[in-house]
Amino acid sequence: MITREQQKSARKHAAAMIRQTGIIITDAEAASIEVVDFGLSNLEKEGVQVLTLVQTDRISVKVLVMLPNQTEPEHWHPPVDDDPGKEETIRVIAGTVYFYVAGADSFREGFVVEGKTDCYTMRKEIVMQPGDQIILAPGEKHWFQAREGGAVMYSFSTIARDALDQFTDPDIVRKTKVGGK
Amino acid sequence: MITREQQKSARKHAAAMIRQTGIIITDAEAASIEVVDFGLSNLEKEGVQVLTLVQTDRISVKVLVMLPNQTEPEHWHPPVDDDPGKEETIRVIAGTVYFYVAGADSFREGFVVEGKTDCYTMRKEIVMQPGDQIILAPGEKHWFQAREGGAVMYSFSTIARDALDQFTDPDIVRKTKVGGK
Repeated sequence: MITREQQKSARKHAAAMIRQTGIIITDAEAASIEVVDFGLSNLEKEGVQVLTLVQTDRISVKVLVMLPNQTEPEHWHPPVDDDPGKEETIRVIAGTVYFYVAGADSFREGFVVEGKTDCYTMRKEIVMQPGDQIILAPGEKHWFQAREGGAVMYSFSTIARDALDQFTDPDIVRKTKVGGK
Repeated sequence: MITREQQKSARKHAAAMIRQTGIIITDAEAASIEVVDFGLSNLEKEGVQVLTLVQTDRISVKVLVMLPNQTEPEHWHPPVDDDPGKEETIRVIAGTVYFYVAGADSFREGFVVEGKTDCYTMRKEIVMQPGDQIILAPGEKHWFQAREGGAVMYSFSTIARDALDQFTDPDIVRKTKVGGK
């Protein structure tokens, strides 16, 4: 759960970071930014801000904003009916992103959220700068992290069904509850 | 046909326009910008510059650059085998774009390329500014135009098979020949 105040603050911060990159978004888009705590009530450490630009039955385009030192938990996109699962390209727009996928352990620059070693199992590290991109096939486990300055990324994908994403951390619930002041 | 000099110049102009919007692209990407004259050998009037960022079997992301007063000829994306045809979202990044689709004639701000009245049949005009976007269903005929300052747009779509696009102008060939100096 996050408070309304946290939601408002993270949304404002994310909109400013997006606009600082030169991307022009409407006020309605800024107001629609989803602040996601993955049900962990620890937004500053584990969370993401998501601006959905395009969402059709066939494709999805999102701008993902990572606040400073925020980590998006390890997850993957499973098959759904006839769909083999979401195929996603992440392209960094601003900031440095530490990206983790399957492969030989090369973990060096990032950090694992305290007490969550079992929830971050992919340890092949890819350090991504603006202009770098990576294609994730359906089912590929991945997680990523921003450092001091935060980061802004595009997610270009086939149809997104976020509610069906699967996470390594059993405590995660994709829907964020907003309550309190 | 365009000359190597025209290709080089249009590519350089397009890369500069993209970078001016704040989008960070690699030098390899800048060098890969496709300069398209649609076989009409009239690039300054009818053409487009295309930077492909993502091209998989499922989705495509391109940055389209219109040079000042350039027009992209009327075309549509037909079905191909099991695919109902390309679904495309155009989002304006910079500049003003005059966009034409099916509907009641509201043609006012744009112009039809001289002597080409029969090749530009869609006359419902949508004036698009940065942050505006439009979704084109498969098969929807469309054309668009930039004015003095040129324009930069994203094209987010399902798989692109440009060679199979269909055009109203029977003289169009999607592949651009480059020759001469």
